[in-house]
Amino acid sequence: MASQQEVKLYGSWRSGFSRRVVIALKLRGMPYGFVEEDTQNKSADLLKYNPVHQKIPVLVHNGKPIAESQIILEYIDETWPGYPLLPQEPYDRAMARFWAKFIDDKCLKSVVKASWGPVDEQEKAFEEVQENLSFLEEEIQGKKFFGGERVGFVDIVGNVIGYYLGAIEEALGQEMLTKEKHPCLYEWAHEYTSCNIIKENHPPRDRSVDYFRPQIQASRASN
Amino acid sequence: MASQQEVKLYGSWRSGFSRRVVIALKLRGMPYGFVEEDTQNKSADLLKYNPVHQKIPVLVHNGKPIAESQIILEYIDETWPGYPLLPQEPYDRAMARFWAKFIDDKCLKSVVKASWGPVDEQEKAFEEVQENLSFLEEEIQGKKFFGGERVGFVDIVGNVIGYYLGAIEEALGQEMLTKEKHPCLYEWAHEYTSCNIIKENHPPRDRSVDYFRPQIQASRASN
Repeated sequence: MASQQEVKLYGSWRSGFSRRVVIALKLRGMPYGFVEEDTQNKSADLLKYNPVHQKIPVLVHNGKPIAESQIILEYIDETWPGYPLLPQEPYDRAMARFWAKFIDDKCLKSVVKASWGPVDEQEKAFEEVQENLSFLEEEIQGKKFFGGERVGFVDIVGNVIGYYLGAIEEALGQEMLTKEKHPCLYEWAHEYTSCNIIKENHPPRDRSVDYFRPQIQASRASN
Repeated sequence: MASQQEVKLYGSWRSGFSRRVVIALKLRGMPYGFVEEDTQNKSADLLKYNPVHQKIPVLVHNGKPIAESQIILEYIDETWPGYPLLPQEPYDRAMARFWAKFIDDKCLKSVVKASWGPVDEQEKAFEEVQENLSFLEEEIQGKKFFGGERVGFVDIVGNVIGYYLGAIEEALGQEMLTKEKHPCLYEWAHEYTSCNIIKENHPPRDRSVDYFRPQIQASRASN
């Protein structure tokens, strides 16, 4: 049945949001086609499929588009059987949604501000990053993954911390997630990036560092 | 069984986010206790239950807290049987989540910016409001409610447009949602505020206007 379905993902190799969907589809064992988008010159298809935000990722299932990475993950979880992304119990599901939202709304925003933001706001943003990571530190304590014994919804959304933060730190020449301050989260990031599914489906670290470096330099130069 | 459960909502009469949870619990027929929070002087309970954001609403079910209004609505939908908030089909669910997120991330932010934001950014924000409302106009076309024939997830989240925008407009002395520009959305707002469940569980319009007016005046004075 799955083979009769047309599943296309519009994304970009460098987008952590696209990577989340890739990971979810791979975990689910769902075959799909990947359309690499040039975010500087968006395709007519992307603009048609996501007229509101005009952003990747967009998953198109039998011609019907779904945008926003976390919403796509929920859709995958509800549509095809297989590896579960969200936990089963309503309270655990609510907690997973809470932390995933926290990662996007708070952690990621503070990391971006500390790395690319106006220079005079970077110090404050760096403190916010530390505070946000401390909340995640508390949450991951005593667990291998946010999803328990295996990678789940929050881990996949957490790729921006588990994978991309390391590349940003290297491009920036400044650490944010350290073994001293956030030992459990640091260990989680290590476990996470060591998983085959994550390693195989994220760009090589050097390539991400090379992508972030000029952006950081341009932002510093313009400040 | 329901009567053996302890359900407490920490909220505020004036918060649209709290009202969403009230509406969902009422539609679901779930008895609950309401704890009115003074957002200027937050209770120890609120800080304990939502240490990350320290914000209302928080639903506490048998001692376990859930924060963030949309996440609480999903929890209610998954926990107790009764009136369904989200649609049943995965694609429809994804669309409902998409529009609900759009309302919070885009519409509401542009309304706040146009009303309370820095004076020199208000004109641009006003245009953003118009553009955002146009997307909702397109989505509601041909339907009574976003949920179809009856109030659903998007309608409940949409209280910030359906109910509160009117009060903000009145306090501001400027219309944003007009019959001329957005006839279907305008009609939806009318239908929505005419529902007994909405009327009975939102503060009287005058009280909301009185709440918004000094905020708008203070913001204008400080600009």
